[in-house]
Amino acid sequence: MSLNPVIDFLGRRLRLAVIGGGTGSFIGAMHRQSARRDDRYQIVTGIFSADQAKSKKDAEELGFESDRIYSNVKELLEKESSRKDGIDAVAIMTPNDSHFDYSMWALERGIDVICDKPMTNTLAEAETLHKKVQETGLVFCLTHNYTGYPMVRQAKAMVEAGELGTIRLVQVEYVQGGKADETKTFSPDNWKFDPVRGGPSRVMGDIGTHAHNLTRFITGLEVDEVAAEIGAIVPGRIIHDFGGAMLRFSNGARGSFWVTQAAAGVENCLRIRVSGTKGSLEWMQEFPQALTFKPLNAPSQNRTPNGPGTLPLSARCTRLVAGHPEGFPDGFANIYSDAAEAIAARRAGKQADPLALYFPNSFDGLMGVRFVDSVITSSEANGQWTKC
Amino acid sequence: MSLNPVIDFLGRRLRLAVIGGGTGSFIGAMHRQSARRDDRYQIVTGIFSADQAKSKKDAEELGFESDRIYSNVKELLEKESSRKDGIDAVAIMTPNDSHFDYSMWALERGIDVICDKPMTNTLAEAETLHKKVQETGLVFCLTHNYTGYPMVRQAKAMVEAGELGTIRLVQVEYVQGGKADETKTFSPDNWKFDPVRGGPSRVMGDIGTHAHNLTRFITGLEVDEVAAEIGAIVPGRIIHDFGGAMLRFSNGARGSFWVTQAAAGVENCLRIRVSGTKGSLEWMQEFPQALTFKPLNAPSQNRTPNGPGTLPLSARCTRLVAGHPEGFPDGFANIYSDAAEAIAARRAGKQADPLALYFPNSFDGLMGVRFVDSVITSSEANGQWTKC
Amino acid sequence: MSLNPVIDFLGRRLRLAVIGGGTGSFIGAMHRQSARRDDRYQIVTGIFSADQAKSKKDAEELGFESDRIYSNVKELLEKESSRKDGIDAVAIMTPNDSHFDYSMWALERGIDVICDKPMTNTLAEAETLHKKVQETGLVFCLTHNYTGYPMVRQAKAMVEAGELGTIRLVQVEYVQGGKADETKTFSPDNWKFDPVRGGPSRVMGDIGTHAHNLTRFITGLEVDEVAAEIGAIVPGRIIHDFGGAMLRFSNGARGSFWVTQAAAGVENCLRIRVSGTKGSLEWMQEFPQALTFKPLNAPSQNRTPNGPGTLPLSARCTRLVAGHPEGFPDGFANIYSDAAEAIAARRAGKQADPLALYFPNSFDGLMGVRFVDSVITSSEANGQWTKC
Amino acid sequence: MSLNPVIDFLGRRLRLAVIGGGTGSFIGAMHRQSARRDDRYQIVTGIFSADQAKSKKDAEELGFESDRIYSNVKELLEKESSRKDGIDAVAIMTPNDSHFDYSMWALERGIDVICDKPMTNTLAEAETLHKKVQETGLVFCLTHNYTGYPMVRQAKAMVEAGELGTIRLVQVEYVQGGKADETKTFSPDNWKFDPVRGGPSRVMGDIGTHAHNLTRFITGLEVDEVAAEIGAIVPGRIIHDFGGAMLRFSNGARGSFWVTQAAAGVENCLRIRVSGTKGSLEWMQEFPQALTFKPLNAPSQNRTPNGPGTLPLSARCTRLVAGHPEGFPDGFANIYSDAAEAIAARRAGKQADPLALYFPNSFDGLMGVRFVDSVITSSEANGQWTKC
Repeated sequence: MSLNPVIDFLGRRLRLAVIGGGTGSFIGAMHRQSARRDDRYQIVTGIFSADQAKSKKDAEELGFESDRIYSNVKELLEKESSRKDGIDAVAIMTPNDSHFDYSMWALERGIDVICDKPMTNTLAEAETLHKKVQETGLVFCLTHNYTGYPMVRQAKAMVEAGELGTIRLVQVEYVQGGKADETKTFSPDNWKFDPVRGGPSRVMGDIGTHAHNLTRFITGLEVDEVAAEIGAIVPGRIIHDFGGAMLRFSNGARGSFWVTQAAAGVENCLRIRVSGTKGSLEWMQEFPQALTFKPLNAPSQNRTPNGPGTLPLSARCTRLVAGHPEGFPDGFANIYSDAAEAIAARRAGKQADPLALYFPNSFDGLMGVRFVDSVITSSEANGQWTKC
Repeated sequence: MSLNPVIDFLGRRLRLAVIGGGTGSFIGAMHRQSARRDDRYQIVTGIFSADQAKSKKDAEELGFESDRIYSNVKELLEKESSRKDGIDAVAIMTPNDSHFDYSMWALERGIDVICDKPMTNTLAEAETLHKKVQETGLVFCLTHNYTGYPMVRQAKAMVEAGELGTIRLVQVEYVQGGKADETKTFSPDNWKFDPVRGGPSRVMGDIGTHAHNLTRFITGLEVDEVAAEIGAIVPGRIIHDFGGAMLRFSNGARGSFWVTQAAAGVENCLRIRVSGTKGSLEWMQEFPQALTFKPLNAPSQNRTPNGPGTLPLSARCTRLVAGHPEGFPDGFANIYSDAAEAIAARRAGKQADPLALYFPNSFDGLMGVRFVDSVITSSEANGQWTKC
Repeated sequence: MSLNPVIDFLGRRLRLAVIGGGTGSFIGAMHRQSARRDDRYQIVTGIFSADQAKSKKDAEELGFESDRIYSNVKELLEKESSRKDGIDAVAIMTPNDSHFDYSMWALERGIDVICDKPMTNTLAEAETLHKKVQETGLVFCLTHNYTGYPMVRQAKAMVEAGELGTIRLVQVEYVQGGKADETKTFSPDNWKFDPVRGGPSRVMGDIGTHAHNLTRFITGLEVDEVAAEIGAIVPGRIIHDFGGAMLRFSNGARGSFWVTQAAAGVENCLRIRVSGTKGSLEWMQEFPQALTFKPLNAPSQNRTPNGPGTLPLSARCTRLVAGHPEGFPDGFANIYSDAAEAIAARRAGKQADPLALYFPNSFDGLMGVRFVDSVITSSEANGQWTKC
Repeated sequence: MSLNPVIDFLGRRLRLAVIGGGTGSFIGAMHRQSARRDDRYQIVTGIFSADQAKSKKDAEELGFESDRIYSNVKELLEKESSRKDGIDAVAIMTPNDSHFDYSMWALERGIDVICDKPMTNTLAEAETLHKKVQETGLVFCLTHNYTGYPMVRQAKAMVEAGELGTIRLVQVEYVQGGKADETKTFSPDNWKFDPVRGGPSRVMGDIGTHAHNLTRFITGLEVDEVAAEIGAIVPGRIIHDFGGAMLRFSNGARGSFWVTQAAAGVENCLRIRVSGTKGSLEWMQEFPQALTFKPLNAPSQNRTPNGPGTLPLSARCTRLVAGHPEGFPDGFANIYSDAAEAIAARRAGKQADPLALYFPNSFDGLMGVRFVDSVITSSEANGQWTKC
């Protein structure tokens, strides 16, 4: 294995622009660190705010060349696409309602896209965007970062290898407490509390899509039908803060789905349990290095990154020897590094390692938006089973 | 506190008959150990099998007096109720379809009852039995034993004391793997696999009622409406092995409910999370000595039996100093010992300690059977929200 | 298997006297509950205090016959040994300095003994007592109760079965916080803080012997040499509250030993890790139902009571199906029930089940007192390696 | 806070050379990723092997300019120190016996140093090197990376803030299984198994220094005296694979120390427990996001990165909102980023944030080598208490 497949493919690093995530943004720092982690990208430009002065200040602090400091996204994309050394890819981490336009503009200019989830706010946009990705053949990477954890990859690989047998039961939950405090006012000045910019169901767009995507990723199954109730458990709140659902999967498996951001004192409990005919898997984001495998009629096992029994898809995205825990930033970086390999291979007209192609894409994004749409439809019909 | 409140009240131990639970039965041994634990009962007679020879052999091994070895339940109840030193109470641990008759016969003869759950197989029986308990004023103790764990009592006491604020969200699951193995045939010769004797929904009667009762016990709330799906996930099975539901509580709280006995490799994961305006509680039966309390805006806490912050309802049923774990048998014994205190107080015409009266009773039994009934109704109506 | 081997052997329950453990004693209640648990003993008499009125009150509350209420231990032993229906066994739970006399008096009268640890305060007494047990052939059961936990038995059985290979490394610790609070005065009126009654090293006698015995039980090895330091970490304290040691085992294995009762906020962390050529075992008393087995070059496993891979020595002392946790009282009761089987078999002139004979005996008691003695010797010689 | 303090101080990133850690090295990738993480360094050159062709290949794969590809370390340091745009710092990750020379050469040329632990193989070298650092005033950062974990920083900050009171007891262990397998031969061709290159005590140099440094970092105490035994538990092995010790601290506190690399099946269990008069702290590297705080007489708490109660020293090195776990690479990167801030501040003649200066330095390195020396001395004197 080479030290840097992007340099292998292109003889240079990918040139990346970042849109959003300026000073004070946690996710912005995460994107930039992820891009730098394996030295596959060079961040050369970016727009950090609609406020041009603010955006410029961040750009300077990040050390961009002065001729790559732009006024807005459109200008950035246009000027970069006419440069000889223009950007290869753009990373979008702006409010949800802008994902569609920015992605479309980039794709139209031949620029590969890395985009935060949810892909779009509406199903129509998601369908259009996915179609555009298919037509252009460009890389579209959606940062459902939890699929980058080594033990999530291991879970998927174990299911693919048949170690669980036929999947029968899935239980997925994503419980947070950030919106539990009633005394805290959430101003719609923050786009996350504005349904127009943040999307039709806050809890579903923000964390429900993660729970849904994690389920699909590990099981390889699609949700066929859903019966759901979503709403605001905190009185007077206009955005959704909880959602429960029953799931029917394409193969007849059944599932339970529960998400909330109003569970006081809880930090970030994304937890999944998958049972098949031969055993069950359990994983919890707050202790991501632990994957519990409970085989039928044998002692339960603690699987760890690079521990005994590690499968190639997991080994590939584990940077350390066993016992050295990795976390959220590592999983996030894995998504970036895999996307880089795919982008560089495409641009070099070569084949990336097939194991590099497990990052979430526009189809995953479309499925996520469709699921949110079905959940809303079901909830509005008082929990009626609804096709996804 | 006296060493033995039953001897305080009556000058002697309670005389108890046991029905069911002979050689080879795990639950039979548990009932008898629980009765002996605090020296409040003397087990003087019992029926262990419809097969009289088998029943007699067990009775002799248990050392009963020869004139207290009977042929059947009816004979036992009749002869004992005419003895001067006849039994005070009967403990019923037979197949579900017999709970109603045996309980009614005992109550009609003035004998207090300890009975396994579910209370009955049908809602009509549950209503009749509860009415009979109310009319007679006798003690009816239903062995929803998980409510006897010190940390479950602590959870209830914390909710009652307002430490969680208003309850908003509940997530309860009971996941087992005992019926996951497809290669194992479950003969309807075993009453548990016979819907007539075992009840209309195996998974709901066996463990769903525990999950439901635990939720009611801790939160003090009733389930108002349920939308559910239950069925058999293992192909060709006639009894239910999974059930999922969404819950609406009497105070507007929302909940998620998930039970299955087909999760390969899982042992006995009864787990509950309750969130209120001021914090969340988490408890898991497999590590019953750990209650996690996550207050809003303060570090999460590990509460332990008799550890700092223990409330009286919990302290009362903890036999040990902090750090010495108790388990399933201790919780089971707590239910028996509390029931003994209530029975002895009633018979002595005195008042038991109010904290002794938290054991599950016929109202809890009725609520459990009604919940099962509503779940079945909802599932048969394809998940329609149904009143409980 | 019979429901009650004692009744099988003798046609009746064993008659037991209890010495110590009156009102307010946690360990007294534990002993009595353990005796009652499997219906193998009938507690017929006891002495609860040097204060005769206090002792009598407890005796009455426990419901003893009036002609079995005695003034002191000597009277009890004498009168009982001359009754036709006299006691078979005595259970001793008095201050450490009285264990020797009471045990000797009982053995001299042909009464089997169950005794709290440490066996004696001095090595000379331990040697005399052990010799007396050997000469009389009576049963002497020392309540090192932690050896009664199913997963401790499983650990021993796995070592015996060779599943760990040759033992190489042992790490044992017993950390408590009960004596951490400097603001709390510990009066020597409490025998536990009086070196004369409580023994020459409080921390070693109280918990050090448990850690030592657990190590011997699981590994089957003896400590050959010890280098130690013990003392009082809380300024001004006259009894020991911590002890550290390095261990050399009979087979060349090495170990680390650490005990303290002055670790603020810690409850009862007895923890052991044993490594052999083929794998390691880890067990922690605060979560006794979890035994972690880490095989060489294979995923680590969570072993549970009655879970897959359970060996007979463990299965025998597990009362429940897998997933139903047992605790401290269950392990304690296992010791009592095994001792009952041994006592009844001896009295019937028959053989008990060999797996019933793993309870700690006077040899274990002697080894424990000898270890304490060696630790003190080493510490007084500033940590010199000292033979055990 | 600026997005990049190095750019603030110098108007550019630091130029870094890396020595060692070529293709196939886990720690090499970790160093380079850590340098890139926060965009504070630009890796411009490096030597990866004594084999010049191999080194050159790695240098090319990493994309260095051709005029910065050198033949050996000395040439690199000389040529770089005469360039106008020469390196600011060098990161050394070569076999232990070369740390001294490479560090001295760099310091002599005014180049700041980041160096793997242990600092040197001999005490004399450590003393010389530490003196040189003091004389030159250059930055020397020793990669005791475990001090970069947010919860280790939180532990230190809590001790500094007096939340534990006076430290009394410390228990530290570092248990690995990588050298447990007897069937695996460890060739002295690997420098780690060659005492000349790897140092006089493998287990002490490799992981014992980590355990020692972690103890000093959290408690702020020095080990005053040690009584130890170190050696090879695997028969026929020439390097040490276990070490046990008793510790006496400068303030009278006592401790237990246990390290081994021969515990079959164990991954990387670095675990510390610190008890003071007001409470205890527990931390375990395998679950680094969990810090347990057990206050005296109050419920135990789970502290998490950026969770409630986080102190500034910890908050500063947490990149994420609470509930998003960080791991080994994040702690490692924190050390690099803090060192960068110190180096840039020094070069700019300004003051770094005082909280940036908690990374391990040459004094820590000297203390570590001195501890190893004392442990060896004590062990050779059969465990005699030895001054550190």
